[in-house]
Amino acid sequence: MKVDEIVVNSSSHSYRIMIGNGIRSQISTFVTKAYSSIFIVTDEHIADLYLSDIQSGLTHEYVYTSILPAGEKTKCIEYYYQLQTEAIKYGLDRNSLIIALGGGVIGDLAGFVASTFMRGIDYIQVPTTILAHDSSVGGKVAINHRLGKNLIGSFYPPQAVIYDVETLQSLSEQEIRSGYAELIKEALISDELTFRAMLKTDLTSLSAEELQEHLRMGIKVKASIVEADEKESGIRKFLNLGHTLGHALEAELGYGSLTHGEAVAIGLLFSFHISESILSTHLPYDQLHEWFKKNNFPLIIQTEDIQSLMMKMKKDKKNVSKMIQMVLLQDIGEPTLRTVTDKDMERHLNSFIGKLVTK
Amino acid sequence: MKVDEIVVNSSSHSYRIMIGNGIRSQISTFVTKAYSSIFIVTDEHIADLYLSDIQSGLTHEYVYTSILPAGEKTKCIEYYYQLQTEAIKYGLDRNSLIIALGGGVIGDLAGFVASTFMRGIDYIQVPTTILAHDSSVGGKVAINHRLGKNLIGSFYPPQAVIYDVETLQSLSEQEIRSGYAELIKEALISDELTFRAMLKTDLTSLSAEELQEHLRMGIKVKASIVEADEKESGIRKFLNLGHTLGHALEAELGYGSLTHGEAVAIGLLFSFHISESILSTHLPYDQLHEWFKKNNFPLIIQTEDIQSLMMKMKKDKKNVSKMIQMVLLQDIGEPTLRTVTDKDMERHLNSFIGKLVTK
Ligand SMILES: NC(=O)c1ccc[n+]([C@@H]2O[C@H](COP(=O)([O-])OP(=O)(O)OC[C@H]3O[C@@H](n4cnc5c(N)ncnc54)[C@H](O)[C@@H]3O)[C@@H](O)[C@H]2O)c1
Ligand SMILES: NC(=O)c1ccc[n+]([C@@H]2O[C@H](COP(=O)([O-])OP(=O)(O)OC[C@H]3O[C@@H](n4cnc5c(N)ncnc54)[C@H](O)[C@@H]3O)[C@@H](O)[C@H]2O)c1
Ligand SMILES: [Zn+2]
Ligand SMILES: [Zn+2]
Repeated sequence: MKVDEIVVNSSSHSYRIMIGNGIRSQISTFVTKAYSSIFIVTDEHIADLYLSDIQSGLTHEYVYTSILPAGEKTKCIEYYYQLQTEAIKYGLDRNSLIIALGGGVIGDLAGFVASTFMRGIDYIQVPTTILAHDSSVGGKVAINHRLGKNLIGSFYPPQAVIYDVETLQSLSEQEIRSGYAELIKEALISDELTFRAMLKTDLTSLSAEELQEHLRMGIKVKASIVEADEKESGIRKFLNLGHTLGHALEAELGYGSLTHGEAVAIGLLFSFHISESILSTHLPYDQLHEWFKKNNFPLIIQTEDIQSLMMKMKKDKKNVSKMIQMVLLQDIGEPTLRTVTDKDMERHLNSFIGKLVTK
Repeated sequence: MKVDEIVVNSSSHSYRIMIGNGIRSQISTFVTKAYSSIFIVTDEHIADLYLSDIQSGLTHEYVYTSILPAGEKTKCIEYYYQLQTEAIKYGLDRNSLIIALGGGVIGDLAGFVASTFMRGIDYIQVPTTILAHDSSVGGKVAINHRLGKNLIGSFYPPQAVIYDVETLQSLSEQEIRSGYAELIKEALISDELTFRAMLKTDLTSLSAEELQEHLRMGIKVKASIVEADEKESGIRKFLNLGHTLGHALEAELGYGSLTHGEAVAIGLLFSFHISESILSTHLPYDQLHEWFKKNNFPLIIQTEDIQSLMMKMKKDKKNVSKMIQMVLLQDIGEPTLRTVTDKDMERHLNSFIGKLVTK
């Protein structure tokens, strides 16, 4: 199978995204600079599966590793500081490299450490989840604050992304679902044909070729948007389709009880619902709902507290001057931004919850 | 008295540095964007003296304030996180502004918060110490790690610097000394004439005109260097003249027992000492030593532990691959970089300490 290469131009530098089956063993061919030392950051699940492949693939003299607990809770100020401490103790300097080996949690955390260790050193993303196709491209790195997700972070693109689809074979069903919600989102932003093709996918019998093809599509959509709008002043906001409610649900139910993608899936349906009402358009709500259902996405909102949910939607970073701003769809492939008043939002949420229950 | 304006071009944007007597009252004329809210960060000493002037000078609707304890210890992860928490609770969004009202501690801390709050919002420096002429220009923001100074941070230039020399009248003698060590450093990097003129200054009878003139010189030297080398890959390192030993002394004795500038003053003498030996040049060591002495700089190294001091010099961010790199002077106005072996460094340190004691 071939290796796909996508080049992303950021304001500070260009970097390559390599996608291929089994390419983790060639890691040293992608780490081209003569780094003084390398610090691999990963989590306990991934360490068991792929860490030794990466370690033995590297030819550098000084390679250090930190293995953190798996899960969203690791993306916090305490582990951020711990990694800084380890980096100092291992003697990392400005010519050192950090390798983020893992999903979005490791990518965001290790990337944020890289962006602020001695005011910024190089890092490479080695994503091992489908969802991390999103987090490893675009340069957003962050940790969570206890009052909200991703509230502390930077824009800091990696030096390269090395995406080995073979590592995705060990993902749980839930993680596959989580990643595919984001791929669906990218298809929705892209065009009708791509979206229709995605709906033909059966997540329980996914081939490596299909997966690589979908990841390439998702990454291309994301890359072209972040190239046009690196700092999220304009169209980059479109990538937040499904995320206003998605993030609020994650926060409301406690990070971890719903995966990111599962929350985004519900958010995507909500964006259809509210788009149809506000923009008087017609979207394939039923087809999307059915595809999510067939692929075992949990499609209920387990909270009675609409007010608290709305409070959390307001905390979203996209919001300008305390009003809820949402990405809606005029049509598939035509995202657009709208601010919604509290009163309208409450009404839409209530009717949406009702609709979810009856389907 | 006139207002000086210096424009600095950073890779992301240009910003103005305004220097004048009493200009804090015109703060609103410099805050031109329609920010959704403003968050003033300051310390307890400065709050007593100048906070109300800034607050009453701002015409914005939402103005919040955080008053932190004074001192280097405040530049830590705990206050960093506390400010993030306050910013979230006050409802700051991406269109908010942070004003850093204070010395280098507040500037570095509040600037680092601004650089990472929601992946970066605008901030303005309102320096109130002489030393902060240095910290407020160039875009370096940071907090300390317990294992070393400024190890966690970003490059993130402010939107503007508003420097009111009138606020410098309330500085203690020690703070004036501390700031002048850095001005002497900039004169040394600049040229012989500027340096000779600085040596004529008597810090106990400083006029506002003299002060403004010296700050303008220091800022111009610094600004021209950071414009040429924003990310410290080359000549920006020259600004670290006197800082390799300076930082190590601060860390060794515990931050706060020696001011930054007092430590740098000793570091500058050391750079003379070692330059004369390594580069076989002649520098006005005695004149500089005398000027420091006349102006009450503490010129002794209060540690017996040379090994520990050297360990700390190695932790310096400038060091590439575990060797100590130092800025030396070929001549006044001619800084240059050299790596020094451990053995040589130990010898130079011992002879320097001996020289300090006998003068
Ligand atoms: N920076 C961005 O632009 C961006 C975009 C989207 C999401 N994110 C972030 O990404 C995070 C979620 O990412 P995620 O879903 O990858 O979470 P994750 O990193 O926690 O990974 C999910 C789980 O899968 C395990 N895992 C990872 N790779 C595996 C593999 N190959 N085989 C078996 N198990 C494996 C992990 O140990 C973990 O338990 C969130 O924090 C989210 O905010 C960031
Ligand atoms: N970012 C950079 O490029 C850079 C450059 C140089 C120094 N720094 C940092 O700057 C810090 C030191 O700065 P500093 O010396 O300004 O320290 P500081 O901010 O602690 O101020 C020193 C003391 O003076 C008090 N003070 C401030 N303004 C006053 C005023 N107008 N009147 C009376 N008292 C006043 C403060 O409350 C404090 O007690 C260090 O942390 C150093 O690392 C950063
Ligand atoms: Zn997402
Ligand atoms: Zn300094």
